[in-house]
Amino acid sequence: MIHFTGTYTDYYQLAMAQVYFLKGHQNHTAIFDYFFRKLPFGGGYVIFAGLEDLLKALENLQFSKEDIEFLREQNFHPNFINYLKNFNFQGNVYANYEGDVVFPTRPVLSIEANIIEAQIIETLILNILNFQSLIATKASRMRQVAGNRQLIDFGLRRAQGVGGYHASRAAIIGGFDATSNVCAGRDYGIPVSGTMAHSFIQSYDNELSAFRDFVKEWPNHSVLLVDTYDTLNSGIPNAIQVAREMEAKGHQLKGIRLDSGDLAYLGKKARYLLDEAGLSYVKITVSNQLDEHVIKSLLEQKTPIDAFGVGTNLVTGKPDAALDGVYKLAFSENKPRIKFSETLSKITLPYKKQVYRVLNGNNAFLGADVITLKEEENIQIMHHPFEPLKTFNIENFKKEPLLHKMMVHGKILITSKKLSEIAKYSQERLSLLPEEYKRFSNPHLYKVGISSQLKDARDQVIKKHKNK
Amino acid sequence: MIHFTGTYTDYYQLAMAQVYFLKGHQNHTAIFDYFFRKLPFGGGYVIFAGLEDLLKALENLQFSKEDIEFLREQNFHPNFINYLKNFNFQGNVYANYEGDVVFPTRPVLSIEANIIEAQIIETLILNILNFQSLIATKASRMRQVAGNRQLIDFGLRRAQGVGGYHASRAAIIGGFDATSNVCAGRDYGIPVSGTMAHSFIQSYDNELSAFRDFVKEWPNHSVLLVDTYDTLNSGIPNAIQVAREMEAKGHQLKGIRLDSGDLAYLGKKARYLLDEAGLSYVKITVSNQLDEHVIKSLLEQKTPIDAFGVGTNLVTGKPDAALDGVYKLAFSENKPRIKFSETLSKITLPYKKQVYRVLNGNNAFLGADVITLKEEENIQIMHHPFEPLKTFNIENFKKEPLLHKMMVHGKILITSKKLSEIAKYSQERLSLLPEEYKRFSNPHLYKVGISSQLKDARDQVIKKHKNK
Repeated sequence: MIHFTGTYTDYYQLAMAQVYFLKGHQNHTAIFDYFFRKLPFGGGYVIFAGLEDLLKALENLQFSKEDIEFLREQNFHPNFINYLKNFNFQGNVYANYEGDVVFPTRPVLSIEANIIEAQIIETLILNILNFQSLIATKASRMRQVAGNRQLIDFGLRRAQGVGGYHASRAAIIGGFDATSNVCAGRDYGIPVSGTMAHSFIQSYDNELSAFRDFVKEWPNHSVLLVDTYDTLNSGIPNAIQVAREMEAKGHQLKGIRLDSGDLAYLGKKARYLLDEAGLSYVKITVSNQLDEHVIKSLLEQKTPIDAFGVGTNLVTGKPDAALDGVYKLAFSENKPRIKFSETLSKITLPYKKQVYRVLNGNNAFLGADVITLKEEENIQIMHHPFEPLKTFNIENFKKEPLLHKMMVHGKILITSKKLSEIAKYSQERLSLLPEEYKRFSNPHLYKVGISSQLKDARDQVIKKHKNK
Repeated sequence: MIHFTGTYTDYYQLAMAQVYFLKGHQNHTAIFDYFFRKLPFGGGYVIFAGLEDLLKALENLQFSKEDIEFLREQNFHPNFINYLKNFNFQGNVYANYEGDVVFPTRPVLSIEANIIEAQIIETLILNILNFQSLIATKASRMRQVAGNRQLIDFGLRRAQGVGGYHASRAAIIGGFDATSNVCAGRDYGIPVSGTMAHSFIQSYDNELSAFRDFVKEWPNHSVLLVDTYDTLNSGIPNAIQVAREMEAKGHQLKGIRLDSGDLAYLGKKARYLLDEAGLSYVKITVSNQLDEHVIKSLLEQKTPIDAFGVGTNLVTGKPDAALDGVYKLAFSENKPRIKFSETLSKITLPYKKQVYRVLNGNNAFLGADVITLKEEENIQIMHHPFEPLKTFNIENFKKEPLLHKMMVHGKILITSKKLSEIAKYSQERLSLLPEEYKRFSNPHLYKVGISSQLKDARDQVIKKHKNK
């Protein structure tokens, strides 16, 4: 449904690219790192998502006729426009596996390409990865508290426009089971699901007739919405009556949905009434402004809920509107590059790099990633990036490389995975992360450091810069 | 770049539509109202946006081959699938003009169509209108404080995925001047604009060479980013040098951009240094986590800023992730319909309706909209929807109808407008709204009431419902 073309970018990327082009920098190889600085939701980790969408977009990225026409009107240089007509991303992409848990300041993805291509694709990379990672992380927090109960994305109507399409994908990576979003289901193979709306019941003269008509056409899939008029005195009694009528015909009512009122109180009442009626197989779905905190609270109150339908707070990542991922130049024209800043923590890391995860004896995560030069071996000491007194000896721990070659010369290397596989991988990785990094309140700080060689190399670049 | 098809909807819309179809409700005419309940940003109004995009989507809405194939796999009924193959929205749309200021609880748009069509399009309507209205409102708040200074949307990289595309459109309606988003510029005729990135400067051995190369290729459009290394000691002096070199060749440097540090302090320093150098024509653009409050504060500090580049907080509508717009059934099968609720304010209004804006003697807005039955005349008393003691005599005021026929039998009636015209209309309408409704802090409450006839008609429906 969405086709990305070359103009899915910021104007300045093209303005800069034109300068590179006219100056003949076509063959200057550049390395850019994608990373973020701040963990969203006050949490302790991010779930990396969006990679496969991004790789496909890069592999197919071209400037359409309309793009070219528009850039001509914007007075781009004819020679540059000719170049864009044949644009084709030819670079290499190194990245974390999609679904992994990742942490601030370390490269999650690196681009190695000629500087023109690498610059033009910046916005596309940030747009896709920032958003999907935000939503996968949000979804993962709900999965943490929901246990094995069903989580369904109901968000499309309140999504930030077409952002809802990719939000549904990211939600699955983070641990959701299904979506109401039919086109996302169609394109990503996500199970689609839904119940019924108040309008359906309103369109009948009474609730019972509405329920009867619905279950007749969906005898195996009916989840009846019971709060249109009066949950306890009308909705649930009518649902029970319909469930009994279904039993007489050899069917089973799948469930009911509560969408207003005190969900803890009504959930317990509903379960009691259904059980009393011998309908313990009828499931209870709840919805209405849910997020990880509400779900946690409902379950702490032992509300017997089987499924949660989550909308706005999932697909918009509320209250954090965006992951603050950036894309920084690390190397070009055979030279290391840094962005200097008076805020030390904003000084970037030069050179082509690798990231290793430090493992404990059981191959679980020790709680530290170390950034190194690409070809470095025998990493012994991990340094805090900016506090020289903070070091950590990791010589005797196993280390797992995290950045893998995903695309070479513009061609995707990896096999496309089912979303459910990515989600499963994400759960596995998250299970290797100790609990203290996953709690909602003041989670433990996962350490991200740099190797001695990278530290020395960076400090030399800083020194050289300061001497200028 | 985005093509909406029939599956851009929630699963349950199709599940309900199938029941309507199989029950033979094809010819049941339904009326649904779109309205929102809560004003975003703690503000006093919303700018209505997204209408023209919505109408175009409705006019062209079809189920694609892939849609049909997917629905078949989901076990929808073959007869219903045949119906969807020929789906074409044939209904009528009544709506406010796009760009108008609108208020909670009153219909902003109404759909009159057969109930199957009306149900299927709910998600599309909510998805488009909720988001664009949220962003146009956010943009309008920034325009309020920015005066005539330039406002540029820099948000695509931090947007909620492809939501950024429509955010750029909505920002213009709310009063922005330009966008960095090239594909939105291409499709919506928005002026595109941008400066340069840190990476451009980093890719050179020194800042001065980078500036020189850039201005050489963009002699009339260069806004130099001055904070890559050291704003006051490197960036601005280098920009001044380049500006002088440009003057020698008959050109003028357009501007500089500040993207970090204390923007009030640096803005004043920058202006002073530029003026001292005889470069008072060089404009100052600032960016970095701006929103309406930061812009207001910078200008209250008399910072000499010419242009603001706004990203995340604009395109995501932070801190409000979504406008809470809903779509409620008001009439079907020749009967009035309500959604009952124990929360009085959530009881919906039945029947086909009109909304009038009450005007004062100068044709400015008095601060009240009244919802009436569609064909009602001589509206004298406006009632608070749920507090019988609160009434307001509006007999002697002029009243302007707000809901206009936009689409008849699935065909758009209105002529497509340029975004700049919609934005101009929005500014005009906003100028008719008294200041007290526009302030950021505890704005005055705009009254929305109902006519005596609508009140009586609604109360009868409630009574009838309660007697059941």
